[in-house]
Amino acid sequence: MKNTTLVLIASVFFCFQSCKKVESNSNTEETKEVTTAKTENKNSSEDLDFIFPKGQKGPDKNFTGNAYNYGIVMDSTLTTIVGNVYFEPGARSNWHTHPAGQILVITDGVGYHQMEGESIQVIKKGDAVTCPPNTRHWHGASPEIGMQQMYIVPNTEKGIVNWMEPVTDEQYNNL
Amino acid sequence: MKNTTLVLIASVFFCFQSCKKVESNSNTEETKEVTTAKTENKNSSEDLDFIFPKGQKGPDKNFTGNAYNYGIVMDSTLTTIVGNVYFEPGARSNWHTHPAGQILVITDGVGYHQMEGESIQVIKKGDAVTCPPNTRHWHGASPEIGMQQMYIVPNTEKGIVNWMEPVTDEQYNNL
Repeated sequence: MKNTTLVLIASVFFCFQSCKKVESNSNTEETKEVTTAKTENKNSSEDLDFIFPKGQKGPDKNFTGNAYNYGIVMDSTLTTIVGNVYFEPGARSNWHTHPAGQILVITDGVGYHQMEGESIQVIKKGDAVTCPPNTRHWHGASPEIGMQQMYIVPNTEKGIVNWMEPVTDEQYNNL
Repeated sequence: MKNTTLVLIASVFFCFQSCKKVESNSNTEETKEVTTAKTENKNSSEDLDFIFPKGQKGPDKNFTGNAYNYGIVMDSTLTTIVGNVYFEPGARSNWHTHPAGQILVITDGVGYHQMEGESIQVIKKGDAVTCPPNTRHWHGASPEIGMQQMYIVPNTEKGIVNWMEPVTDEQYNNL
């Protein structure tokens, strides 16, 4: 197995992102009502929908609290990695960057994400965020409700993730 | 707006895929039970979960039945497109190829996909499929239960999709 492949496999388990938020806009009232109702009824992570298995717990050196990663696709021809992370309430990543950027899609729950120098944004089911290359950011669940997120790492030949320092309680609570 | 950008925007609304199936393997019994139970209880498309808005109906020239596309992310820096397609029961795409390949993730329901020369595969909530570049294939919902799928088009600078002829009833029913 090539070194590049090993790096990809090792990195995907702890690879997360978010940044520029792309709000989902309902174009049918019926669908919007269904989505809103389901999101608002999430009172705890016990209510969250699991599309994928829970996955493996991310290491304490890269996360505060409990975050679980499940790898979905690693394809060297398509130079793309896809996975899912389940954050328990209060859990969040460290600060980190992605050399080639990343896309994050929230499939259930409520969370936060923040780019350095910007305010925390609240993200929820149906939202998507994109992260430009080499931009410092973090993301995680809200304090009361967990978050299910799919991540997409494009152009993996440029790199996956560079981990940095933890997000402090002061930073996390500065909503 | 550059021509390349226009092509991307126009193409994303009718851009779908699937091919090499990647089964999701539960590593916690609890999660597997939840996922299985939810999938098995889908008796019609009325029961499917809508993470995103329903979107716009795909044109008859590219689809048989009713399929709806919702664009989630188009990012030229990340050279990636992400969207969601909701297929009503019995709906399917025409045969088509993707110049740079594609990834498909099923978030709810049950569907089919087939690469030319291979058997139809059944795909359901939690499954993922990858499509190599320039491979003829089609996909859609099962006859009785609809399908919610996210699609990821990587390396969009190489192209998005090339549409071909419809999937006949004989091909669709040859499970």
